[in-house]
Parts: sequence; C-alpha cells; structure tokens
Amino acid sequence: MEADTSIVIINEKDAEELGTHALDRVNLDRDGEHTIAVVDTTKKMVQEGEIGLTKSLHKWKGSIQVSIASKPDSVDYIKKKMDGKEWNSEEIRKIIEDINKNALSDIEMGAYVTTIYTKGMSFREMADLTESMVEAGEVIKWGYDKIADKHSIGGVPGNRVTPIIIPIIAEKGIKIPKTSSRAITSPSGTADTMEAICDIDFSLDEIKKIVEDTDGCLVWGGSVKLSPVDDKIIRAEHPLSLDPEGQVVASVLSKKKAAGSNKVVIDIPYGEGAKVGNIDEARSLAIDFKKIGEHMEIDVECTITRGEQPIGRGIGPVLEIRDCLRVLNGEGPADLRKKSVRLANILLEMCDREPNAEELLDNGKALKKFQEIVERQNGLKNVSEPDLELGTHTKEVKAERKGVINHIENKTIAEIGSRTGAPKDKGAGLYLHKKKGDRVEKGEVLMTVYAEKEEKLEKVVQQLEKNSGYRIMDENEMIIEGI
Amino acid sequence: MEADTSIVIINEKDAEELGTHALDRVNLDRDGEHTIAVVDTTKKMVQEGEIGLTKSLHKWKGSIQVSIASKPDSVDYIKKKMDGKEWNSEEIRKIIEDINKNALSDIEMGAYVTTIYTKGMSFREMADLTESMVEAGEVIKWGYDKIADKHSIGGVPGNRVTPIIIPIIAEKGIKIPKTSSRAITSPSGTADTMEAICDIDFSLDEIKKIVEDTDGCLVWGGSVKLSPVDDKIIRAEHPLSLDPEGQVVASVLSKKKAAGSNKVVIDIPYGEGAKVGNIDEARSLAIDFKKIGEHMEIDVECTITRGEQPIGRGIGPVLEIRDCLRVLNGEGPADLRKKSVRLANILLEMCDREPNAEELLDNGKALKKFQEIVERQNGLKNVSEPDLELGTHTKEVKAERKGVINHIENKTIAEIGSRTGAPKDKGAGLYLHKKKGDRVEKGEVLMTVYAEKEEKLEKVVQQLEKNSGYRIMDENEMIIEGI
Repeated sequence: MEADTSIVIINEKDAEELGTHALDRVNLDRDGEHTIAVVDTTKKMVQEGEIGLTKSLHKWKGSIQVSIASKPDSVDYIKKKMDGKEWNSEEIRKIIEDINKNALSDIEMGAYVTTIYTKGMSFREMADLTESMVEAGEVIKWGYDKIADKHSIGGVPGNRVTPIIIPIIAEKGIKIPKTSSRAITSPSGTADTMEAICDIDFSLDEIKKIVEDTDGCLVWGGSVKLSPVDDKIIRAEHPLSLDPEGQVVASVLSKKKAAGSNKVVIDIPYGEGAKVGNIDEARSLAIDFKKIGEHMEIDVECTITRGEQPIGRGIGPVLEIRDCLRVLNGEGPADLRKKSVRLANILLEMCDREPNAEELLDNGKALKKFQEIVERQNGLKNVSEPDLELGTHTKEVKAERKGVINHIENKTIAEIGSRTGAPKDKGAGLYLHKKKGDRVEKGEVLMTVYAEKEEKLEKVVQQLEKNSGYRIMDENEMIIEGI
Repeated sequence: MEADTSIVIINEKDAEELGTHALDRVNLDRDGEHTIAVVDTTKKMVQEGEIGLTKSLHKWKGSIQVSIASKPDSVDYIKKKMDGKEWNSEEIRKIIEDINKNALSDIEMGAYVTTIYTKGMSFREMADLTESMVEAGEVIKWGYDKIADKHSIGGVPGNRVTPIIIPIIAEKGIKIPKTSSRAITSPSGTADTMEAICDIDFSLDEIKKIVEDTDGCLVWGGSVKLSPVDDKIIRAEHPLSLDPEGQVVASVLSKKKAAGSNKVVIDIPYGEGAKVGNIDEARSLAIDFKKIGEHMEIDVECTITRGEQPIGRGIGPVLEIRDCLRVLNGEGPADLRKKSVRLANILLEMCDREPNAEELLDNGKALKKFQEIVERQNGLKNVSEPDLELGTHTKEVKAERKGVINHIENKTIAEIGSRTGAPKDKGAGLYLHKKKGDRVEKGEVLMTVYAEKEEKLEKVVQQLEKNSGYRIMDENEMIIEGI
C-alpha cells in the first residue's frame, strides 16, 4: 500500500475484460518506459477505463497501456525454498531485485520472510543474499584505510551505547560514520535519542563532510539509500516479530558494507525478552556474522552480552541521552559504562589503537568529542545535562512488597515506555531507580514515569496497575532458586 | 485491501501521535460497537484528524474513537507453528475467527499459508481446522436422510463431470444441491460453464426451493455464505500457487459439511501439470479426506484418476457444456463419459442405489433431468446443442510434424484458453481434436481456437507460435521411452 508497494486499482469490469484478478500483476507501458504493478480491483472507487495509482506510481499519471504480466519468477523461487531446495545465486539476486522494485505483494513478502525463517539458509545463500542486498543500493567510498562501525542486535530497552562509543573511537582519529535507526516499537532508537539534542537527518554529502571534520557522526540512516531493500524486508518481518538468523546477518552486514565500513563490532545481547533468546542462538549468530563478514571483506568481532533486563536507567530519548552524558562525564549507570567501554576497546584494538576507553571517559576527552559532533550536527555548543528537558507529568511506581528484584521484563518496559509518548515526545519515558538484584522495602520507588502530556500519563498509569514489568521475590525464594 | 481486508488509513502525524505504524492494528469504537482494523498511513491522502476506511468498514463512517489495539494472538500462534509446535483446538479456532473477521494483514495471511504448507498438520489439527471453518459460516439443514455431493481437485482443463453427474443422481431421487466455483485462473469453472445456459446466482432460500422441486441444482457457491473463510484463505494461497494438503482437506470438507452433505465422492486427478503431482500425494490426500470425513460424520469416497492431460475436448464455457450435452445424449468424448459414469456410480452405491449411470445416459433420462434443472434455473426449455453459440473468430492449430501426441500440457492449455476471453466471453475457448496417443500427419488440425473478439484471437495466435501445449514425438521415440 502507500508504504511503497506499487499497486494499480482498476474497475472490476476492466479487470474481467483483461482477465486479471486482485493480486495479479500488470505491465504499465508508455513511450518505451515500463514497470510492473500489483492489481487491486474495485466496484466504485475507480471508474471503467480509469486507473488508480498508489504513491510510488504517481509518475505514471496520464494515459498508459495496461496488459497482463506474468508472475515474477521470484515467487516460484520462494516456493522452491518452501519445498526444501537451496537457492542459487541468480535466484537470490532476482528475489532481492523484485523486492527492491516493489514487485512482490504483501502476501508474497509474508511468504518470503516465513520461508527464510522456517527453512534457514546455508552459508553460501547468506553470502549471496548479503551481496545482492548491497548491490541493490548505493555504496559509500571513503578514502581511508579503516572505517569503524558498531551494531547492536535490538530488543533491550535503554541499550544506548552508541553515543558513548562513537566519540571514543573518533577521538582516536578513526573515522566512524555511524548511521542509526529510529524506533519501530521501542520507546527510542539511537536516532530518536540523538534527535533530543541535535539534527540527525543529513544527506550523504553532508554526512561525509561531518565525518571529514569530526571523524564521527551520529545520524539517522533513513535518508541514506544504503541497502534500501532491508527496510522493505523489515516491514514484512515486523508484524510477525520474525528475525530469521540468515536475514539478520545479511541485513546488518549489507548495511555495513554499503556504508563502506571494514572494522565492525557487533553486540549480541541474549536472554529472556531480548531478540536472541539464549546463548546457543547468540553463538550461532556470532559465528555467522564472522564468516559472512570475512566473505564480504569486513573485519567483524562479536560480543555476547546479557540482555534479560534494560541497560542503563533511562528509557526514552532525553532520559537516555542523560545517561550517556553522565557516562561521558565519568559517572552514570555502571552497566552502561562497562558495556560501552568493552565494545569501544574491542573496536580500538581492531583498529590497532590502545584500548583505553575508560581513560577517555574519565579525562573528559570523549565528552569533548561528543560535544563537538553534536555541535557539528547543529546542536547546542557544549551540550550538558542542564540543557535537557524532561516531561513534567510524572508518576512514581512503588514496590508492593519487600524483597529482591528478581527480574525486569524488557517487553513490558518497552511497551510502557512507548505509551508515555516516547520517542515522539522527547522528554517522555521511564527512569529505573532499581535494577535486578537490588533489595527494596515495601513502598520504595522502583521507577518514575515521565510524560509530556497528561492524558498519556493517565493511560500509562492504567497499564502499570496491571503490570509494571518488575518482579520482586523474597530473599529466601531467591536462595532456593539459586541451589 | 478493497478485496475485504479492513484497513483504516490515517495521516502520518496522527499515527505518530497515536504511536502506531503501518500494519499495526487499531480499535474502532462508537456507541458500544467495536471492531479491529489494520492501519495504513499516508502523508496526503487523508488529512490530520480524519480517517480513510476501506469498503468493509464503510458502516463506520462518521465520528469514531480510534485507539491502539494489540496484535491478535493468532499472529503468535502462527509463529508458534513456524517454530514446529502443534496448535491446540482453541488456537486454531482463534486463527480462523481472526481470518474470518479480516483481522490479519496480507503479510500475516502470507505467513499463515506458508506455515501450513511448510509445517503440515496433524490429523487432529486438520479436524479442528475443518470444524472451525464450518463454525465460521452458515450451515444448511435439510430434512433428508441423504444429501449427496461431489468435488474435484482442480487443475485439469475441461474436467466438467459435474453437469453430467448431478442429473444422474437427482434422477434417482437423491438430493444433490451442488454449489460450484467460478474460474480463478482457468478458462472456466463449473459455475461459468453452467452460466452459458442458465442462471447460477441464487440465494440459499432459492437454492432450497430448486432442490425441493428437481432434487438437484448446479449453482454458484459464491453468494451462499458456506465456509466463508475458505475464500479468504484461497485469496492468499492463489498468488503463491500453494495448496497445502491439510488446508485443502479442511477447505473442501468444511464446505461440504456446511452444505449439509453426508455422501460425498471426491475426484483426485494426479499427474504432470495437475494440482496433485504424483500418485503418492494423491493417496495421502485420499486417506486424509476419508479420515476427516469420518470425523465430520460425512461418508467420503475418493477416486484417484489420471490428470496429466485435459479431459473431454472442449475448454471454455460453451465448448464444455457442449461436451456435457453430448455425453448426456449418450455420445460425446469417451474420457469425459467414462469418468462421469465412474464417479456417479460410486455415489449411487454410497446412497444404496443401483449403479446404472450408463443406462441413464443412454436412455435419455439423465438429459431430461438436466434440462429440467436448467429450466428451473431460468434457462431455455429442453436446452440442446443447437442453442449454443460459439465464438465466430477461429484459428486452427496444425501439427508441425508427423508423429504421436505424447503429451498435452494442462497449464499451457489453460493459459491459452484464458487468453481467448473465456470464461467472460462464453463462446471463447479451445476444441482439442487430438488427444494423447493419437497419431497425426504433418499439417493435421490439433485444435481449434474460438474467440468472440478478434483482438483476443490475435493475441492467442502470438502465444501459440511459442507453444501450443502439444508435444509430438516419433513413434520410434515413443517405443524407446516405453522400454
């Protein structure tokens, strides 16, 4: 639909005359130009002899020739894989080409992601898929030896290590042109978080100039056409909550390759409520990343980290950037600092630099570099905590019993966070006063909810009455569980 | 989309404010009424504060409350099955309920049919699926002991046994209220074929009266709400050319159960180019039909027949009904007669009647009953061959070499047939002068193409130059192949 599938809407009578049906495909032709679109039919919306076009087809307005097109071969290839056969390189290339030009209908896209998920991919298929995805978009050429990058497999709220790692690497004179995504269902993506303090939407040329000047950037990847087919695949994976391993590897590494990166650290958090459920899956994913990285001539290192509870204390754009500023000040949440340091040091070693991330956090050099990048992205000069504005409508969530925090559910925290209005309302979100393992008294504050709009806070409070995401147990129960 | 998915289109700004995204779902509420719809977003088509509704939601026009709805549980169930787990009865019931109320997006429907296809179903799952599909629609109650019915698994052009079998059974005083489908991609469905000589679109009450009067009917099933969810599932299977065994069994038997039938013969043609590729698949399907039939208290018999070439000689509505009239006259194509007789006799035995179908064809009683039904369905009195009008634009396709017809491709024949304008143009289609095993001289006529419109004939001729569907071999080659 509007998203960007190419759909022509024709009157049922014309469809009957053409011998075509909803979800079939037609050729559109005019003056030697040609494209293919999926058909939908209507009784009334479009009159006989006329044709309705969705957004991506608007340049076809006017008089055009419409004829029946055959089903793209990719649909047969998807069926072939359902039947347990392996794809060859040409078939994968054709599927990616068809997805990229919106030639597959939503039903076929649902079939594609389901098939990849249920049938898996061989190493060679993954390699071909990654290459095809790179070919489908632009590739950035840098004139440098080493281009560093990082990626985190999502699903863990507050896991905002990027704004800490980038200035550490850039401070060492290594180019790290980081593009990040916005939130899909979570309360904030790295792009949303950075947007709380500076611009994030730049053209490829502008990004190049920023990186030229400051060695790093923290921008939104959406306006750059790197591996564009990835967004179309994610659109089909998202409603089904599918992250097929082979597709994840191809998606991440095709974006990195297209961005021109050759030194990449990938964080794989695992655990209950994280995208990767257990350590075996995490290890298997790490091996695939390394192997496909090698094939794509990208030096890849993976870290496997615990992801069963949120990282840091703030959830939501302003609350997260506050945690980052605190860590860049040599303070802040210990888990966020530790994780950022670990990832930054691995990347420094990969780039043949001294792994002294902690020193750069403690001596203020990383903070200075961060402020420089923010200013270069049209943000405040010397941005610091007092510049941040939190939502003014707040609610404290208190412990209903005495005990030990046994678990904080990622999914519930993400859902509550989203309902506060984040990431659209930058100052909305959650602050977690207590983390796993903390002892609490009855009535002690577990978290504070921030909202910019009162009606949003009210709705969150209703939800919190059902489930706050915190699970508290007796110390005795904890011990029994530990045996 | 228009088909009948329930979609609301909202402005991107409103979507951001609601915290919802394309393909998410929202609740629609007004005065205690409630429904769920899938979201699509737009920059321009719909203004802020307004909402666009697809056809199935038109009764919601006016002022309504919109709020975020959670993902239907069915989506999690589909994922569960992708992960190799079995569905319980309640999960299947919920999936069918959600499909029936259009709560699943096309991506999710694509995932559903792909999952069923790749993961299969246990006997219990098939039984539950069949029951749930029956429950989703109306069920006809007849006041009779025996209600007969027949079904053919599709894919074989010209396989028009229904207009021959129904009058044979009805002539014996057994009620056989046959509802048929229209063509989806083939040149004619039984409903299209009957439409060449009488009305086929009747309400349930009208159907009951016709069957009361004549013991049989030959109507279109589309206007009767029997197992309505089946059409929604077929809509997702069709673009992928998927016919998952469990779904086929549930679809066919749920329609039969809803129609109140308890004596059903099912024809399973197999072979190259038929829906069922080989005899093992055909046998497995037959066993499932019998077992699920027993569970649903339907007496089922299956015939496994060769389906690697078209049946009869005519392809297209008028050409097919001409074959049927010829068989009902004690003449006509031998294969069509033989197959009809076999199926009719099985059904007669199941209904404790003498299996004398040939006698009824030869003594004209079946023809008389057929003419009675046609007249009752507002067709001509005593319909016979001279009443039929064929397309006036014709083209003979001739053998390019001497030899023996080794094969006639179902798919090519169906495709050529569709391009003649059939089933919309009733007199369009193909007549096959030669069938498999026939000896031909170079230049001898293989088939005649009929069209009502000259431009359609021209297009067919272009296609025929590439492939006529006929494969001719030397007699020697035939013998070598035979060794």
